[in-house]
Amino acid sequence: MLEEYKSQIDKAIAQLHFPEQPADLYDPIRYILKLGGKRIRPLLVLLAADLFDKDQTGKAIPAALAVELFHNFTLMHDDIMDEAPMRRGKPTVHKNWNQNVAILAGDNLLVWAYKQLIVYEPEKLSLLLPIFNQMASEVCEGQQWDMNYEVANMVSREDYIEMIRLKTAVLLGAALKMGALIGGATVYDADCLYQFGINIGIAFQLQDDILDTYGDSAQFGKQIGGDVLANKKTILLVDAYHLAEGEVKNELEACLAISGELDEMQSQQKVQRVKAVYAQLGVFDRVSELKKQYVDHAFSWLKKIKSGQDKLENLTILAQSLLTRSN
Amino acid sequence: MLEEYKSQIDKAIAQLHFPEQPADLYDPIRYILKLGGKRIRPLLVLLAADLFDKDQTGKAIPAALAVELFHNFTLMHDDIMDEAPMRRGKPTVHKNWNQNVAILAGDNLLVWAYKQLIVYEPEKLSLLLPIFNQMASEVCEGQQWDMNYEVANMVSREDYIEMIRLKTAVLLGAALKMGALIGGATVYDADCLYQFGINIGIAFQLQDDILDTYGDSAQFGKQIGGDVLANKKTILLVDAYHLAEGEVKNELEACLAISGELDEMQSQQKVQRVKAVYAQLGVFDRVSELKKQYVDHAFSWLKKIKSGQDKLENLTILAQSLLTRSN
Repeated sequence: MLEEYKSQIDKAIAQLHFPEQPADLYDPIRYILKLGGKRIRPLLVLLAADLFDKDQTGKAIPAALAVELFHNFTLMHDDIMDEAPMRRGKPTVHKNWNQNVAILAGDNLLVWAYKQLIVYEPEKLSLLLPIFNQMASEVCEGQQWDMNYEVANMVSREDYIEMIRLKTAVLLGAALKMGALIGGATVYDADCLYQFGINIGIAFQLQDDILDTYGDSAQFGKQIGGDVLANKKTILLVDAYHLAEGEVKNELEACLAISGELDEMQSQQKVQRVKAVYAQLGVFDRVSELKKQYVDHAFSWLKKIKSGQDKLENLTILAQSLLTRSN
Repeated sequence: MLEEYKSQIDKAIAQLHFPEQPADLYDPIRYILKLGGKRIRPLLVLLAADLFDKDQTGKAIPAALAVELFHNFTLMHDDIMDEAPMRRGKPTVHKNWNQNVAILAGDNLLVWAYKQLIVYEPEKLSLLLPIFNQMASEVCEGQQWDMNYEVANMVSREDYIEMIRLKTAVLLGAALKMGALIGGATVYDADCLYQFGINIGIAFQLQDDILDTYGDSAQFGKQIGGDVLANKKTILLVDAYHLAEGEVKNELEACLAISGELDEMQSQQKVQRVKAVYAQLGVFDRVSELKKQYVDHAFSWLKKIKSGQDKLENLTILAQSLLTRSN
């Protein structure tokens, strides 16, 4: 059933008509959209709409496209800022073309996200645009905090959670809320779904942090321990840093001081030492518990909606798949 | 009278409330808005609205802000792409902070432009958003063509005009059209004002090209001949290149081949030789005539509006000041 929604989205993306020219402005947009992906955000729009809309008329498709185009705009610009060479196994836009192309095509992609919304009738548009604007600005704020925290000495657990809320979770929340309102939900139900999305989004990001250190490398699809080697401020490190005292703190600081080019053995040693610190502090269990709290919180919001309770299956399946994914 | 409008805009910009944090996201926005400028685009919004709105209630102010924020977003990102170190006598955002800050603050500024529009009632918003979206995407296209033409061997006159239409003129047209619709104009009158803006915008850019080579350096405020020295494809060079034949063409090609670090004397010589070619071909007169055609065309559109003919004075004064400016 989710597959049907997914193919609806893939079809709608394929049918997006961008001008041929200027090629350097529109080819990168076609390129990044063809890289594929799980299309989680547009799926959330459609699933939320269909909780309330009995006719399942596909009228949430344009908003689903807006959300997906926005997401791809953030990927294109974030990849410049992070100097990322690859995305989904292919060169990033700024590598495949150049940085100016990636800046301008990204800008245009953001505008085209907004372009999707103009098909909605005035009253609906007036509900959707403020949600989309607020989300878009918050995602920028989240990216800025993320960049700030990269060069900060350390960050509090609260600030870290707030950063991932802004950078990742508000887009899931906005996708659900927009879909709900298109489907005819009350503002109350739409807000419950927004909160569901926020909490799922935070749990999802916490899990991402856990998997990078404790995942199965074969399933996770990337090298385990990458975050540890890069001293990345994940929830694990943030938590460990604030818990550690005395000798344990010294050991953690010593591990963080190991940087530069490491060979395979040195890398493995660093990861093992940091994991030993995490084990001493019970960080894995603590963070798993934190994730569980956000998941529970999310589903408690879902229970509050007054309409659509009988159609939650798809949404529950999608959320569960996000929260148990191993890649 | 124009001064009153200008101070309304300056006041509204000063009252824009951006969050304090994250500082690296919002300080660059405050910074670029404080650099000032003539605020031509928001002035066009207000003047167009007041042609039709008898009450002059200031309800066009949010759209004026949207247009000005959008303009500043383009400046912030264009300055990265052009590697411009200075803007209005101050360091550009990417120089004063860094490039990532300029990318992200620019993105956020674009979102904040859209944020200004949500105050409009649904029916109005539904008129305004498509105009704003279309304009924004076209401005991106214009910037891409401009970058393409920088590295192209040559460009046709038609392609050059189309580039400046997209990069510069559509924003003036959209400002006027949005203002008109907010003021209650018919779609016909709003479209006439759009065409007025397009033609004024093209004339304005042609004049900018003329002034760079034929302006009074004291009045123009920058070195005369900068475009010539950089082999910049202005309307003058484009026209000369297509007109020149035989010896004159050889001389023009020879001038274009003079590049690299030039001392003061070599620079002056290059400018003089290129101007001699322009003189032989009558380029100044041809381009001045072309500019005049766009101005005449612009005012013919203004004559067509069916309402507001008695209140055109401010708009005419503003347009004339743009078209006779020497800086």
